[in-house]
Amino acid sequence: MSRGRFITLEGGEGVGKSTQLRELAAALRGRGINLVTTREPGGSPGAEAIRGLLLTGDEGRWSPRAEALLFAAARADHVEQTIRPAIDAGQWVLSDRFVDSSIAYQGGGLGLGGEAIRALHRFGSEDFLPDRTLVLTLGEAEGRGRAEERDGGASDRIGGRDAGFHRAVDEGFQRIAAEEPERVRLIDASGSETEVTARLLAALDDLP
Amino acid sequence: MSRGRFITLEGGEGVGKSTQLRELAAALRGRGINLVTTREPGGSPGAEAIRGLLLTGDEGRWSPRAEALLFAAARADHVEQTIRPAIDAGQWVLSDRFVDSSIAYQGGGLGLGGEAIRALHRFGSEDFLPDRTLVLTLGEAEGRGRAEERDGGASDRIGGRDAGFHRAVDEGFQRIAAEEPERVRLIDASGSETEVTARLLAALDDLP
Repeated sequence: MSRGRFITLEGGEGVGKSTQLRELAAALRGRGINLVTTREPGGSPGAEAIRGLLLTGDEGRWSPRAEALLFAAARADHVEQTIRPAIDAGQWVLSDRFVDSSIAYQGGGLGLGGEAIRALHRFGSEDFLPDRTLVLTLGEAEGRGRAEERDGGASDRIGGRDAGFHRAVDEGFQRIAAEEPERVRLIDASGSETEVTARLLAALDDLP
Repeated sequence: MSRGRFITLEGGEGVGKSTQLRELAAALRGRGINLVTTREPGGSPGAEAIRGLLLTGDEGRWSPRAEALLFAAARADHVEQTIRPAIDAGQWVLSDRFVDSSIAYQGGGLGLGGEAIRALHRFGSEDFLPDRTLVLTLGEAEGRGRAEERDGGASDRIGGRDAGFHRAVDEGFQRIAAEEPERVRLIDASGSETEVTARLLAALDDLP
């Protein structure tokens, strides 16, 4: 039995990630792939419990460093309990966010630096990385507009941060894609849902 | 106003740490010191929530690395929310366990190594260390006997681990004391409660 593949979908607020996750999963299953979908923070019972601590409560509930450690703990559990076992069993795994979100959000947006986040990931998860990471991108104004339309202004602890924060997040994703062009692909999220899904699928064609 | 002092009390299972924490706190307060007592994991609202995840559930609930990251996250919150503000306000803080427990338990007992735990502490809490750490020690057989007598065999996720684990923890504390003799003092926990408390107080006499 061949080893499965690990694909992650990333992107800032309002780029249509949830819709595309569903569409991409359906398209891969339509090709006969045995696919597990999962998400971060969360994706295993322990990591979902940590998610509860991360996404509820006041904006200032956790310091940036405590937040980064909690994300790394949740990810270590997610990799060990959910992702590795599925891939070892020959399944594909599609995750809504993974370590690149931590690099962009806590490393970039909160200013801890990408290297510090990667060091936590090396400690927690032996630097386990996706076979391919697809980053949905939109011009900043368009993305924020879409997020506000969807939320009606409401948001969770992290989505609710200010424009400067979200700009640093976008720059973080751009930097990761520049540094790891083989693994990470920037995908234009403009146009119809069908067009965006086709771009995502095309970016998996040369998967090793 | 002078800066307060940060004292931690450490030790393996069954060395009488809870009793001595109470006695030491009473003795320090008797000397007119404005003292806050706290504990790990926990000691702040966020860290107490993480404590709930750490100390309940099955023995195999968390991998050693996820456990170490959760302890580091809880400690970052504890330092920032509770310990630093008290010390900056001129109070003394006495904590039931701190980073040396992580070095001994996760670093030694679970085999992750003390340096990896210290690296997490540097990231999470800027390597914030006690002014003095008092480690209660007993011969292994005596300590385990006392713990079993007290618990009637019952214990939490961490106290309930096997003898090899607890031996590695004791060795971890011995190593820390050898490496940092100025900060860390081994205190003989045998004899009467009054005798042990007197030894703890004597080990604070040369506090800088």
